[in-house]
Amino acid sequence: MIPNAALEALRAQAPLVHCITNYVAMNIAANVTLAAGASPAMIHAPEEVADFAPIAGALTINIGTLSTQWVDSMKAAAVAANSANVPWVLDPVAHFATPYRAKVAKDLLALQPTILRGNASEIIALAGGAGSGKGADSGDSVNDAQSAAEGLAERHGCVVAVSGPVDFITDGARSASVTGGSDLMPKVTALGCSLTALLGAYAAVAPSLEATVAAFVHFAEAGERAATDATGPGSFSVAFLDTLHTLKPGDLADTRVSWR
Amino acid sequence: MIPNAALEALRAQAPLVHCITNYVAMNIAANVTLAAGASPAMIHAPEEVADFAPIAGALTINIGTLSTQWVDSMKAAAVAANSANVPWVLDPVAHFATPYRAKVAKDLLALQPTILRGNASEIIALAGGAGSGKGADSGDSVNDAQSAAEGLAERHGCVVAVSGPVDFITDGARSASVTGGSDLMPKVTALGCSLTALLGAYAAVAPSLEATVAAFVHFAEAGERAATDATGPGSFSVAFLDTLHTLKPGDLADTRVSWR
Amino acid sequence: MIPNAALEALRAQAPLVHCITNYVAMNIAANVTLAAGASPAMIHAPEEVADFAPIAGALTINIGTLSTQWVDSMKAAAVAANSANVPWVLDPVAHFATPYRAKVAKDLLALQPTILRGNASEIIALAGGAGSGKGADSGDSVNDAQSAAEGLAERHGCVVAVSGPVDFITDGARSASVTGGSDLMPKVTALGCSLTALLGAYAAVAPSLEATVAAFVHFAEAGERAATDATGPGSFSVAFLDTLHTLKPGDLADTRVSWR
Repeated sequence: MIPNAALEALRAQAPLVHCITNYVAMNIAANVTLAAGASPAMIHAPEEVADFAPIAGALTINIGTLSTQWVDSMKAAAVAANSANVPWVLDPVAHFATPYRAKVAKDLLALQPTILRGNASEIIALAGGAGSGKGADSGDSVNDAQSAAEGLAERHGCVVAVSGPVDFITDGARSASVTGGSDLMPKVTALGCSLTALLGAYAAVAPSLEATVAAFVHFAEAGERAATDATGPGSFSVAFLDTLHTLKPGDLADTRVSWR
Repeated sequence: MIPNAALEALRAQAPLVHCITNYVAMNIAANVTLAAGASPAMIHAPEEVADFAPIAGALTINIGTLSTQWVDSMKAAAVAANSANVPWVLDPVAHFATPYRAKVAKDLLALQPTILRGNASEIIALAGGAGSGKGADSGDSVNDAQSAAEGLAERHGCVVAVSGPVDFITDGARSASVTGGSDLMPKVTALGCSLTALLGAYAAVAPSLEATVAAFVHFAEAGERAATDATGPGSFSVAFLDTLHTLKPGDLADTRVSWR
Repeated sequence: MIPNAALEALRAQAPLVHCITNYVAMNIAANVTLAAGASPAMIHAPEEVADFAPIAGALTINIGTLSTQWVDSMKAAAVAANSANVPWVLDPVAHFATPYRAKVAKDLLALQPTILRGNASEIIALAGGAGSGKGADSGDSVNDAQSAAEGLAERHGCVVAVSGPVDFITDGARSASVTGGSDLMPKVTALGCSLTALLGAYAAVAPSLEATVAAFVHFAEAGERAATDATGPGSFSVAFLDTLHTLKPGDLADTRVSWR
């Protein structure tokens, strides 16, 4: 399924996406998902996540801001999604920064996400390597993270995506690179977390590898167009939401994707 | 009290509005309330809500994101508001989506809010009907929710407001419709939640039915004007905040309201 | 160290800033800090704050939205920062509004922050005076808060900064006033909280008094320029983030600062 067909399916189905994400990302991730054409729902209570995950088209879990209670909710939601064959996406934000965070990421990865997305430092560290990330920012290049991504994809049977200037996506057997975007994107907080939410939207309407590529192309296309008239991260962010919304099936350039 | 007089009172008094709202809405609801002319305060700790609600001009409670502790705070704040004759607004976001959420909405409704606001699916389901909502989005028309709204208003002795392309507001005896707004509004997350916060601001300075109508007209007027030059949900949101702020008493068109 | 040299150091080092801030401020504070040139990390879990604070360049604590668990995290983070000689900033939002909030502010102040920032009402009340604040908004003038600020600075051995139309900053021995900004700034929620996060960024690269002055000048300069073309709080906020990002060393006017 090519990116444009996936976008067409997304617009037609407007899937419900259950997002457990961090406090910083909550609003922008919902706005990104809405602008792209899906229906986000941010639901975290342990009392209800297992009831909600199965009725959603996809679940996304981002560990940016944690608490004991939310970690319980994350696990319960992932288990419920698995039982209901609902695809789910894991975003292990800065998992290398503290022992607590590392343990949460490891426990969630063991629950077999459908898609795993991070920056280069996060993916390298998750594969056991020594990255040089600083908080939520990557200190490593996407190229350096490719073998880590392939290894994780094979070991955990999931799609692994590495965000960066050129993104890298693999299911262990097939891989793709996606170009585009803007260097203003890392200057807007939580855009990576928002891409995780968008991955959920696409995973609800397309097979996981194609869904991942489509979400990254949608993001890269909108980012590159939004940067044209932006004078900084504020105006970029506004134009980015507008462009996610106005892009139509047919607008996602195939030339952004290199398969191998 | 006509909408323009209520706006004049709002600007003159800049009431303190105690908001318990969800994580997605927190920032935009505060910005909407500030832009309109009030002073929002987001306060949730069980240790302090009962001290704060009585000193505010109004309280608003939105169940978008829940936890055991927050539900306790919501109830304690509502009880304290009632004791101090502070008006309060209930927004039962997606209460039909899980049993936990349904119970919380029911318990809060039993505490007798001054104003109840929801989309059509939420109001229909709260009255016991079978709506077709999906997460936080409505799947039903405002027209289909009118009798449910009237029934709830009579049964609970409150104003009930249904948001949609044409809004419907009733206290069981009198009803009003409000036109305006933009189809970009549902594409910006948490604007409904933000309207709930604005309802609190108006309820602090005007009788509940007139306050509700005024808040909806302020919202509809700002939404319609903001959409003029918007190219998507990002630029709409920016223009919407600007317009909420720049609208002056006299700018709220009476023709938006139909009483019956 | 003059403001421009501090900005140069900030851009060169892009310090990691550990922020414990409120739900309303979380996104805008991260965006302000990122736009200015630092790397914010919002981390709150009791299980990890003491591991994270020592690896950050600075810590900031804002009490805007509280819970028992977060108060524990705030204290643990402050203690860990002190042990590791990491500077930390306290923002006692609306501490006078409830007894709970007042106690939390007092307990944190006893842990000896490097910098204390508030509006006039907050600083007056913290020094034991009777201010006239309303929620998060000040009801007092910066002038009226100067002696309270000087007293707090001497008693607690920290820099105290009072935000307002003309800001006042003191370490008890030296004091400075900073002019600039825009009257649209109080119409954007959590900009004061965002300044607290930016204070952390500067405190990571400069001595505390100079860091505080530099952060206020950066804010004032960006605010004044952003207001030029803004038509309300929405467009102001966008231009403000753009300007924080595009200002370069050399752009921070010395004439904004009056030392005495």
